[in-house]
Amino acid sequence: MAVYTHLGAEDLARLIGEYDVGSLVMAKGIAEGVSNSNWLVETTGSGGSGTRFILTLYERRIDYADLPYFLGLLDHLAAKGCPVPRTMHDRDGASWRMVEGKAAALIEFLPGVSPTRPTPTQARSIGAVLAGLHLAAADFPQTRANAMDFAASAAILDACGAAALETIDPALPAMLDHARVAAALDLSALPQSQTHTDLFPDNVLMLGEDVTGLIDFYFACTGPMLLDLTVTHAAWCFDAANAYRADCGVALIDGYQSVRPLTPEERALFADVAKGACLRFVASRAEDWLDTPDDALVTRKYPMQFAQRWQFYHDHGAALLAG
Amino acid sequence: MAVYTHLGAEDLARLIGEYDVGSLVMAKGIAEGVSNSNWLVETTGSGGSGTRFILTLYERRIDYADLPYFLGLLDHLAAKGCPVPRTMHDRDGASWRMVEGKAAALIEFLPGVSPTRPTPTQARSIGAVLAGLHLAAADFPQTRANAMDFAASAAILDACGAAALETIDPALPAMLDHARVAAALDLSALPQSQTHTDLFPDNVLMLGEDVTGLIDFYFACTGPMLLDLTVTHAAWCFDAANAYRADCGVALIDGYQSVRPLTPEERALFADVAKGACLRFVASRAEDWLDTPDDALVTRKYPMQFAQRWQFYHDHGAALLAG
Repeated sequence: MAVYTHLGAEDLARLIGEYDVGSLVMAKGIAEGVSNSNWLVETTGSGGSGTRFILTLYERRIDYADLPYFLGLLDHLAAKGCPVPRTMHDRDGASWRMVEGKAAALIEFLPGVSPTRPTPTQARSIGAVLAGLHLAAADFPQTRANAMDFAASAAILDACGAAALETIDPALPAMLDHARVAAALDLSALPQSQTHTDLFPDNVLMLGEDVTGLIDFYFACTGPMLLDLTVTHAAWCFDAANAYRADCGVALIDGYQSVRPLTPEERALFADVAKGACLRFVASRAEDWLDTPDDALVTRKYPMQFAQRWQFYHDHGAALLAG
Repeated sequence: MAVYTHLGAEDLARLIGEYDVGSLVMAKGIAEGVSNSNWLVETTGSGGSGTRFILTLYERRIDYADLPYFLGLLDHLAAKGCPVPRTMHDRDGASWRMVEGKAAALIEFLPGVSPTRPTPTQARSIGAVLAGLHLAAADFPQTRANAMDFAASAAILDACGAAALETIDPALPAMLDHARVAAALDLSALPQSQTHTDLFPDNVLMLGEDVTGLIDFYFACTGPMLLDLTVTHAAWCFDAANAYRADCGVALIDGYQSVRPLTPEERALFADVAKGACLRFVASRAEDWLDTPDDALVTRKYPMQFAQRWQFYHDHGAALLAG
C-alpha cells in the first residue's frame, strides 16, 4: 500500500494533458492498491469531463495484456448503470498509455468510504449490486480466465509444502487436501458471467447504506457467478473475532437474490464453492506468509483466518440456503 | 511516507462528527508525511466550513507539547493572508484532539501541486511568500526553540563518529569540523521571527507560478529569518545533478527582498548561515543513513548531496549577494 513510482508534478501535468479533462489542480499519492501506484487527481475539467480522477500506474503482477479486459469491463458496466468508475480515454481514444515504461490509466473518481464493520443493510446493498453487476456483464464480449481458480489454490499450497505450512499453523497442511477436493469439483452446471472475485469491503465505496463504487477489478475474470457471491459472503460476513455474522450473511444473500435468484445448481453447490473460495485466500496468504521475512515492514495477512472460515462453511454452509 | 495507523470508515466518521463540517463523504490515506498518517477527507460541509480537509494523526517524532505552537502558528499566518492551511477547531474549540491514543488535527485542504523542477518565476514567488510569512509571524506570541540548530548538527555528526561517516563517503568526516565552526557562529545580530526551516519544494503547493500553500510546519521554530531563507535557497536552487541554478537562486533572493530587504548583517552572514543550513541536512541524513539497514524498504537520502551544496556556498556563497 504505497506509491512505488515517483511522478513529479510536471510529469503528472504532462500526462493529464494527454486527456481532455482540463489542467492539473491537485495530485496526492494515495495509500491504496497492493501492486499499483495511485494518485487522487483534480483538474479544472473540460466539457463533460469530471474534475476528479484516480490515476493508476500499473506496477507488478498485472499482465498488460489483461488491461483491455479490466478497463473495457469498467466501461461496459458503467454504461449499464453499475456503480463502477468509467475510464477516461486519451485524445487518441486509448484507455491506457505508457508512462515511464509503465501502463497508466485515468479512472473516474467515485465518492464514498469503505465500511470496516458492515451493517446488515450494507450487506444487503452489496449483494444486490453484485447481482446487478453479474447481469450487466453477461453480454461483455471479452473473457479472461481465473488465474486464481481452485486448481491454482491447490497448486500454490502444494508448492508451499506441508512441512512449511505446518510452521504457520498445525491445522494448515489439511487445507492442502481440502484444496485438492475443491479443485476436483465439477462447476460446469453453474451459470457464468464476468466476476469481480475480490470484493472485500475495502474494494467497495459506500455513502451510508448505498453502494457508490466497486473498485479494484484486477482479479476480475470470467467464471461462475456463485464463486463471486461466496467470495463476497466470506469477505463480508465475519466479525473481527472471525465469528460468523448471520445477520449480514442472510442480508447479503437476500439482497443478491432480490436481483438474481440462485439456480438449484447454485444452491446445491453453495457450501462447496464457499469452501473453495476460502482456500483461494488461504493459499495466497500462506504463500505470502512464507515469502515475507518476519521483520519486513509490510503487513502479512494470517492464512488461518480463512482456514477458520473454511471450517465454518464445512460445518454450516449447506444450511445457509435452507431457508 | 505511509499511513501508519488504521482508522476505519466508522472511526473516521465519528472523528469528523466532532467538528462542525458536515458528514464524511470520502477519506483517502495519502502518501505524505514522514512521521504522520494523513488522510484527504471530504465532507458535506456545514455553514462556512469548507468540504475538504487534511486529517493528520501525529505519530512519532512530534512532541505533543509543540502542537499549540505549530497549529497556532498556522491560524495566525492564515488570518494574516499567508497561504497556509487553517486548522479546524472541534465543537469544544480545540485545534487537536486525541484519537486511539494519538493526537489528531483537521486542517484546511489547499489545492496545488509541488514542483519538482522549479522555474525561476516559481522561485521568485516562493521567496516573496517566505518573506511575507516572516513579517506576518513577527507578532506571533509563542516561541519554540530550534531543535535542529547548528549546535545540534555538530552534536549529531559527532555522535555518528568520523569512522562511521567515512564509511558513507571519505569526504564526510570533514563536515563534522565544519559543523563545529557553524555551531560557534554568532547569530545574535540577525533579526528573528517564526520560521519554517524545512521549505523544500515538496512542502510547497503551487498552481502555475502562484504559491497556493505552504505545508508541513513541524520543524517550525523561532530563529533567524536568514536561516529560513538559506534553507529554502539550498533546497530550491540546485538541479537533479546537484549543479547550482543561478537563475533560480537570483530570483529567490530577489523575490524575498521585494518584500523584506535583507539587513547588512544578514548579507554579511549569508554564506556562513547557508553552509550551516546545508550541514543540518548532512547531519540528519547521515544519522538516518547509518541507522537504516541497507536492505530496508524506506528510501535513504544521500548525505553527500548537501555536503556538495555546502562546498558550493563555501566557494561561491559570498558572491551571491554582491550584486
